[in-house]
Amino acid sequence: MFLDKLLAASRSQSSLLCVGLDPDPALAPPALVARPGWVAEFTAAIIEATADLVCAYKPNLAFYEALGGEGWAALRATLAAVPRHIPVIADGKRGDIGSTARAYARALFEELGADAATVSPYLGRDSLEPFLAYPDRAIFVLCKTSNPGAGELQNLRVCLDGREVPLYQAVAARATTWGPEGGVGLVVGATYPEDVAAVRALAPRMPLLLPGVGAQAGDLRASVRAGVDGAGERLIVSASRQVLYASRGADWLTAARRAAEDLRAAINQARAEAR
Amino acid sequence: MFLDKLLAASRSQSSLLCVGLDPDPALAPPALVARPGWVAEFTAAIIEATADLVCAYKPNLAFYEALGGEGWAALRATLAAVPRHIPVIADGKRGDIGSTARAYARALFEELGADAATVSPYLGRDSLEPFLAYPDRAIFVLCKTSNPGAGELQNLRVCLDGREVPLYQAVAARATTWGPEGGVGLVVGATYPEDVAAVRALAPRMPLLLPGVGAQAGDLRASVRAGVDGAGERLIVSASRQVLYASRGADWLTAARRAAEDLRAAINQARAEAR
Repeated sequence: MFLDKLLAASRSQSSLLCVGLDPDPALAPPALVARPGWVAEFTAAIIEATADLVCAYKPNLAFYEALGGEGWAALRATLAAVPRHIPVIADGKRGDIGSTARAYARALFEELGADAATVSPYLGRDSLEPFLAYPDRAIFVLCKTSNPGAGELQNLRVCLDGREVPLYQAVAARATTWGPEGGVGLVVGATYPEDVAAVRALAPRMPLLLPGVGAQAGDLRASVRAGVDGAGERLIVSASRQVLYASRGADWLTAARRAAEDLRAAINQARAEAR
Repeated sequence: MFLDKLLAASRSQSSLLCVGLDPDPALAPPALVARPGWVAEFTAAIIEATADLVCAYKPNLAFYEALGGEGWAALRATLAAVPRHIPVIADGKRGDIGSTARAYARALFEELGADAATVSPYLGRDSLEPFLAYPDRAIFVLCKTSNPGAGELQNLRVCLDGREVPLYQAVAARATTWGPEGGVGLVVGATYPEDVAAVRALAPRMPLLLPGVGAQAGDLRASVRAGVDGAGERLIVSASRQVLYASRGADWLTAARRAAEDLRAAINQARAEAR
């Protein structure tokens, strides 16, 4: 079960930190990018340097697709470098229907062997059934995203069961009915701590994936305090650029590890305050 | 410009038909699937057999991703087989933010050279800016999808500018403000002809992409009549399985061409009635 694997990794490493793997040739150390097959080398080194500090890894599929033909092989190599006890969340924000959704689920869960995948809620529960058919995997449904314009649709007031709520809260409420405990989580951006609190209130036991700290300037402390469950768990705080690109010089790997250590500590501090 | 290319192809071939390219080893002719590199051979043959009957092709990225490492090369081969004057809509329903959205736009428009891409509206306009930065390309925003459960979120009543409308209509209204004419279109499933009419009323000049005919049993006649613009144009009717898998026997290619001819004729009949 995804949730068991997540909680075990999180507890054994005292960490809610997830390192997002966004291999970007424009940001990675130039000396590394110059080498053929740099992505596999880069992500394997990052994973080796941070594997005792995280509860999950989150490869961002867009960055692999942007590599063209080498992308899929690089993605496979990245996943192969993740120790077996650490869950992998394939971040592709997929959303499609019927046979297409089945193809996506097969690609991510079977071909790639990911433990979880991010998905879009817009097409409704039936579009997610092919993912939910894998009982040991999980989906994270986009709820409130971390971008500045997230509210354009996500904050529209909607009528749900006779009450008027912002759309993202309707999504959270619907998603609690979409699968077994631990099989469905929500994505809520750290850039909106009050909305993190509202979502946690609606979904007390769901795992929440919290992007937007670091480079996106989300409020880490407020979001972690609002996002953890009653036991200070079931929260996955994802940082990508702040760790991966902490330095572009020869010290990039030690800088990445130090950034991950600092983030884990800051998260655990906020978590302690939430008790 | 995408719209010019679409209208030129549509007029010169008297067709609103788009053939969706969903290479599925479970449905394709077994004799073909047994051969290495069958996807490139299959799609090239389908394209050659139907190129004078369509206004666009729509490769469905999920089916290529499900092929694993060979997927990207097969996708490239598919695109290379499309004659230059016929637009290609990369159907990946992407939706992400900032640097990730830029990576997706680069992958689809630069690496792959697609003319248009399907995208999710859920993250709002700012998530789509990287796609809109390519002035000669277009995006098709999911509005009302063709699946049975589409309404779970898309029909929620929302407040927009003081009126209460279903969410998909709010998406259509917002999307009309998102880009220049022809640069933004909408996806509306043929399974909901009344909603096609509502969207056309809100967006009189936008190109509409209409999936869900054929295997999904959408109402072709009613949807085409509701979906065309005042000149009987700006509608792209997409069919995949009904054409690709018209036969699994030795006659699969002639059967595919006949299915495309029949669909084009049925669409043109409905289009004539709409005048």
